[in-house]
Amino acid sequence: MALDLTPFLSNNAKSMRRSAIRDLLNVANKPEIISFGGGFPNVLTFPVDDLKQIMAELMDEMPGKLLQYGSTEGSVALRKQIAKRYQKDGVNVGIENIIITTASQQALDLLSRVFLNPGDTVLCGLPSYLGALQAFWSYQGMPIGIKHDEEAEAVVSALCAIGKKPKFIYAIPDFQNPSGVTMSLERRKEILAVAKKYDILVIEDSPYKEIRFEGESQPTMYSLDPERVILLGTFSKTFVPGFRLGWVLASPEVIDRINVAKQSADLCTPIFSQEVAARYMEKDLYDKNLAKTIDMYRQKRDLMHECLTKYMPEGVTWTRPEGGLFLFVTLPEGYDSKELFEIAIKENVAFVIGEVFYCNGKGQNTFRLNFSYVSDEDMIEGVKRLGKATAQLLSK
Amino acid sequence: MALDLTPFLSNNAKSMRRSAIRDLLNVANKPEIISFGGGFPNVLTFPVDDLKQIMAELMDEMPGKLLQYGSTEGSVALRKQIAKRYQKDGVNVGIENIIITTASQQALDLLSRVFLNPGDTVLCGLPSYLGALQAFWSYQGMPIGIKHDEEAEAVVSALCAIGKKPKFIYAIPDFQNPSGVTMSLERRKEILAVAKKYDILVIEDSPYKEIRFEGESQPTMYSLDPERVILLGTFSKTFVPGFRLGWVLASPEVIDRINVAKQSADLCTPIFSQEVAARYMEKDLYDKNLAKTIDMYRQKRDLMHECLTKYMPEGVTWTRPEGGLFLFVTLPEGYDSKELFEIAIKENVAFVIGEVFYCNGKGQNTFRLNFSYVSDEDMIEGVKRLGKATAQLLSK
Repeated sequence: MALDLTPFLSNNAKSMRRSAIRDLLNVANKPEIISFGGGFPNVLTFPVDDLKQIMAELMDEMPGKLLQYGSTEGSVALRKQIAKRYQKDGVNVGIENIIITTASQQALDLLSRVFLNPGDTVLCGLPSYLGALQAFWSYQGMPIGIKHDEEAEAVVSALCAIGKKPKFIYAIPDFQNPSGVTMSLERRKEILAVAKKYDILVIEDSPYKEIRFEGESQPTMYSLDPERVILLGTFSKTFVPGFRLGWVLASPEVIDRINVAKQSADLCTPIFSQEVAARYMEKDLYDKNLAKTIDMYRQKRDLMHECLTKYMPEGVTWTRPEGGLFLFVTLPEGYDSKELFEIAIKENVAFVIGEVFYCNGKGQNTFRLNFSYVSDEDMIEGVKRLGKATAQLLSK
Repeated sequence: MALDLTPFLSNNAKSMRRSAIRDLLNVANKPEIISFGGGFPNVLTFPVDDLKQIMAELMDEMPGKLLQYGSTEGSVALRKQIAKRYQKDGVNVGIENIIITTASQQALDLLSRVFLNPGDTVLCGLPSYLGALQAFWSYQGMPIGIKHDEEAEAVVSALCAIGKKPKFIYAIPDFQNPSGVTMSLERRKEILAVAKKYDILVIEDSPYKEIRFEGESQPTMYSLDPERVILLGTFSKTFVPGFRLGWVLASPEVIDRINVAKQSADLCTPIFSQEVAARYMEKDLYDKNLAKTIDMYRQKRDLMHECLTKYMPEGVTWTRPEGGLFLFVTLPEGYDSKELFEIAIKENVAFVIGEVFYCNGKGQNTFRLNFSYVSDEDMIEGVKRLGKATAQLLSK
């Protein structure tokens, strides 16, 4: 007979929430389903031949290093390459400002561990990235959402008044997941002013910043206040997610705290993939490949926009982001995307319901569409199916 | 001016302890120092050519899969190979009993997260593996040590009497780190009987089990009570540590809890290295390479034993383990290995002081020597230097 685990579970375990996206991906795993669900990059963007070549090269040059334990802070060569990218943008950073993580999700996890006590509040967007909310919840943190950045000061002030000052503000300023919205420079400065006034840390989650289709790039919040802002970067969207490589850019004090937390979390991130990524950047291949990725995703965003315009019934709206991987769709008030999901799955098309991105349990009439992963052919067919499913829902 | 982080830190962060080993490795990083410190495998055991070949093969066959996101529970192919190894030993397990982790350290972290509330006790050895203690501490758990397995029942009973029943018993039954001691079958059964009587989970950390030089292999504690025991395995000592691949073998209920915790910890372990490891095992290369590794480490253990016998002053004793990577040395009562370390570093030889493995702060007259990493030449020279340093200490 199976042992009942309930009496053994920690409060953290009871507070954890299963990822609706991961569970959804299992539902949507059938080959006949066209999925706009996950935040997967397109496999055609993977630089397979270059990576194969570099792997062989490095296995000849430094097999002992590649296959051995690495340092907790990560490969010096890779941190140098990452620092260089920020330096190019005029940001004064060195490798002492960088620690490599097992992708951004680990950075969110370690930061939550280092900063959150049970019941501590975190300011985030309504909607916001589910993986971040999961990390906060798994340490019994309490994400508090704001619908517009302009509400930040009022909400922080109210939380302070009841002794619940947020430990940090969690922001995704560029092509926010899931909304696709980008913060203007003015808004970035306003949020930082609130953080400074109330003495709150800021986590700038920056996975999509380099995937800009048009318009002018905004400075990172980190560059505007490098003492207070902790920036999270990742190669998962701009290079390959399979290596699980991300980084934290922050003050040496923050980096040191994350280092100690990471020692007991997984000791170090695989050195093999770190050295491959470093060499790939040293060869100046990264930017060339990224430019092609951006072109592809821009075209895919346009195609999805076109298809939605063509196939979606009246009353449905969506964002048209200047970059990133997602569109965010809003149904007319009163309709529930969970119901749409049920219909859509029967039509063999999938997406992520918006509700999971709302820490306040709202957002029922919204959902997220990923446009990077599927082929153009599938996108046209998928949006057609989705339009049909939506028409069914609205005619109810 | 740097921001003072202290007011922001969580109680978890305050409870974390820096790894003395990782810090020591930084001290011992100079090329002139011969280090018996880390638990590093010997680079000559890495199957470089085979891995290079497999990487190229898989990059041709399935690049899209290798470089994309994987599932949280890990590669099916790899879990099948791992299950097969246990099945060969007559243990009835399937892939539903296995989740891949970013090496064993992550398993220790996730299990601590799922089971430990602040103040919860864990029964462990005196001494015990530092990385495990770090994981317990980082969730404000309280490791309680026992010097001999026979003390388990008395200590558990005493803890229960004060309402502090351990959440789990943490054991390394084969070639324990750092002591090198292996539990007899009888002892395994006794510990399991205590766990059953008091209804406590057991974590069986099993990184060295397959590295046996002589004597008879004992059954895993997991095979004796698969509902209660959670086994941790890793490729870090038997294959390559650089891939950061480990696994948990447990009931599907435990696996599911770890899965949810892992979703917010790092989403998934790199799929690339998982598929490479799976293919390596499918080709029956794993056991062949392991046999060579065992031969090499047996010879190195013997050489270290010989050198210690030759160069160590009278009154110093050490273990002669039947497997694993470490010898554990005891100085005469009253001497402190921290002082020895200071002298040894000047002599350009390093080790890990025993104190860090003792959750009760004791063990001052002990230290750990790794025999897998250094060349035979360095081992002879290193132990010679260590003998000289020890003689200096004892003559004080």
